[in-house]
Amino acid sequence: MKTGRLEAFSDGVLAIVITIMVLEMKAPEETNLKALLDVFPVFLSYLLSFIYLGIYWNNHHHLLQATQKVNGKILWANLHLLFWLSLIPFATSWVGENYEVSEPIALYAFILLMSAIAYWLLEIELIKFHDENSPLKKITQRGTKEYLSIIIYVLAIPVAFFNSWISIACFIIVAILWIVPDKRLEKFSI
Amino acid sequence: MKTGRLEAFSDGVLAIVITIMVLEMKAPEETNLKALLDVFPVFLSYLLSFIYLGIYWNNHHHLLQATQKVNGKILWANLHLLFWLSLIPFATSWVGENYEVSEPIALYAFILLMSAIAYWLLEIELIKFHDENSPLKKITQRGTKEYLSIIIYVLAIPVAFFNSWISIACFIIVAILWIVPDKRLEKFSI
Amino acid sequence: MKTGRLEAFSDGVLAIVITIMVLEMKAPEETNLKALLDVFPVFLSYLLSFIYLGIYWNNHHHLLQATQKVNGKILWANLHLLFWLSLIPFATSWVGENYEVSEPIALYAFILLMSAIAYWLLEIELIKFHDENSPLKKITQRGTKEYLSIIIYVLAIPVAFFNSWISIACFIIVAILWIVPDKRLEKFSI
Amino acid sequence: MKTGRLEAFSDGVLAIVITIMVLEMKAPEETNLKALLDVFPVFLSYLLSFIYLGIYWNNHHHLLQATQKVNGKILWANLHLLFWLSLIPFATSWVGENYEVSEPIALYAFILLMSAIAYWLLEIELIKFHDENSPLKKITQRGTKEYLSIIIYVLAIPVAFFNSWISIACFIIVAILWIVPDKRLEKFSI
Repeated sequence: MKTGRLEAFSDGVLAIVITIMVLEMKAPEETNLKALLDVFPVFLSYLLSFIYLGIYWNNHHHLLQATQKVNGKILWANLHLLFWLSLIPFATSWVGENYEVSEPIALYAFILLMSAIAYWLLEIELIKFHDENSPLKKITQRGTKEYLSIIIYVLAIPVAFFNSWISIACFIIVAILWIVPDKRLEKFSI
Repeated sequence: MKTGRLEAFSDGVLAIVITIMVLEMKAPEETNLKALLDVFPVFLSYLLSFIYLGIYWNNHHHLLQATQKVNGKILWANLHLLFWLSLIPFATSWVGENYEVSEPIALYAFILLMSAIAYWLLEIELIKFHDENSPLKKITQRGTKEYLSIIIYVLAIPVAFFNSWISIACFIIVAILWIVPDKRLEKFSI
Repeated sequence: MKTGRLEAFSDGVLAIVITIMVLEMKAPEETNLKALLDVFPVFLSYLLSFIYLGIYWNNHHHLLQATQKVNGKILWANLHLLFWLSLIPFATSWVGENYEVSEPIALYAFILLMSAIAYWLLEIELIKFHDENSPLKKITQRGTKEYLSIIIYVLAIPVAFFNSWISIACFIIVAILWIVPDKRLEKFSI
Repeated sequence: MKTGRLEAFSDGVLAIVITIMVLEMKAPEETNLKALLDVFPVFLSYLLSFIYLGIYWNNHHHLLQATQKVNGKILWANLHLLFWLSLIPFATSWVGENYEVSEPIALYAFILLMSAIAYWLLEIELIKFHDENSPLKKITQRGTKEYLSIIIYVLAIPVAFFNSWISIACFIIVAILWIVPDKRLEKFSI
């Protein structure tokens, strides 16, 4: 099987996930600047989730460019990843309304953790199906960034019950780590 | 006519159907774990429907890969399938809120049944339009799994009025039947 | 300019328009069959609109297959068509809740009329940009069906204020006229 | 990296953004013409935003057709543009309900301004990555129209607090400026 429709379907789901979050930002009833400021935390949680989904789309894009063929297991590993990513709007909405409360922040960290694991599983299935010399081999070499992200997500769950702001800081740090362009990936995807 | 736009449109509809279900999972007003647990049945019904739509997307993907050309009847058979699949979020939402009540479960079974029949009709139209030696001929050979699924959906409708949990178990069994990779399909779609 | 992205964008918009209508079908609060029957008119209006959008997607698909190139005016003629089609869910929702009232039915007829005119304008722009021998010339030959549809839509607007059921019958007749496969189109789009 | 998936993802996001605005137009409870007229300002704000998003889609389409390759920075510049465009439905909804109030109009102007800047940044990143003789060089030559638009958006923000109708007139003038087909772009994108 070729990768065309897998990419098209993933693009579709990610495009929808990234935009339905805006539906959660309801236009305020009142029309003064204060009413707009009340929406601001929801806006910030949307911004953070937009960046995370942008990172996943970018990495997914690079990964699939180095992929030559897919099988049934890879289709399911990809759907598994899309499943966790599709829960981000739900968690974003809960966090946006309650950004100082532990449970929503912990749930957000949990969904980011599961998404990271699902991406890892997708990489593993892709490598299994390609031979040794495939560019996939090098792209999917996991470095400090990959392990660090997962460790930070794991820590952010219990930390949310002590101080939710530390967890939020964790999310921002991981996002910055990933926005910095990944030279290793681009090299192989020209 | 080529299959490109049929695939693109189907991917679009399926991607939307699979993600709009999450919109039904409203972020709870309260922020404790109990409030999250209250959303849990809705989450499980989302998970089940996500898996069913994933199965349909996978099978549709395989089917179209073996297809060389389409005609007007095939376009309508495909739209007919998409119509029933597009009702899954509605049924999922009703089931998620009332998973112990007979009517929502029976409706869910009915929509799964109609989707399975619509898929069958699509296969029939595709075979009619291709010649004897087309790979479609072998891919669409209906085996035990196909007939068993339809029988289980039919049974799940009346059973829901006796015990909705048995019907739910039926849905899970059919899903597992289909998640197991279908060697027969993959062979022909490389 | 090639037609690829015009098709992709149109497919995206049509896929979304066709599926967001389901969001209007809210899962009923109650769980008996009566509650489901209350949703039935909404369901029927969804079914009718699904068929209309299916017809437009089919015809658009055929039209673009015979198209070799597009220009800026064609892009806008296409956006104009998508604009009217995107209003169908709004009208569908209003009709579904009030199918015996004149105003919603008249609005529905008006939007169908404007969509038909927009499709016509798109055809005109496409023909202008292609030479005499293009297959477009023959595909876009307007026959009885095209003129009849527009006349029926125009009539359905005032008729809705006398008897909304006659207007509904008009919509169903036009839909049936168009579901019958159009030999003229398919011939040129192999 | 090739431009295929960047286009597909952008088309997906723009198609969703352009259609979710309709979701904000709730079918009125009542069924007389007056109820429909009450929705009219919301309709007009939808129409204006539809045209703006149509302009962005058209220009983005032309820009990417002259693009041969993309890198990580371009992917992010594109996501940045999509981010601001995705906020248009939120602003549209707020304006539609309160079109005579300063704050919503000023926010609308601000989001249009940020979108224009984001588009500019995308052009800059694209030019950096292509050599001197690329057709991109000429397409992205900024003329009066580009600078005038940005100046008008900037002015529309404070003006909204004096008279919101002047700001609305500004939005309409800029839209008309851009709907007139851009000969310069089409020449290079055949």
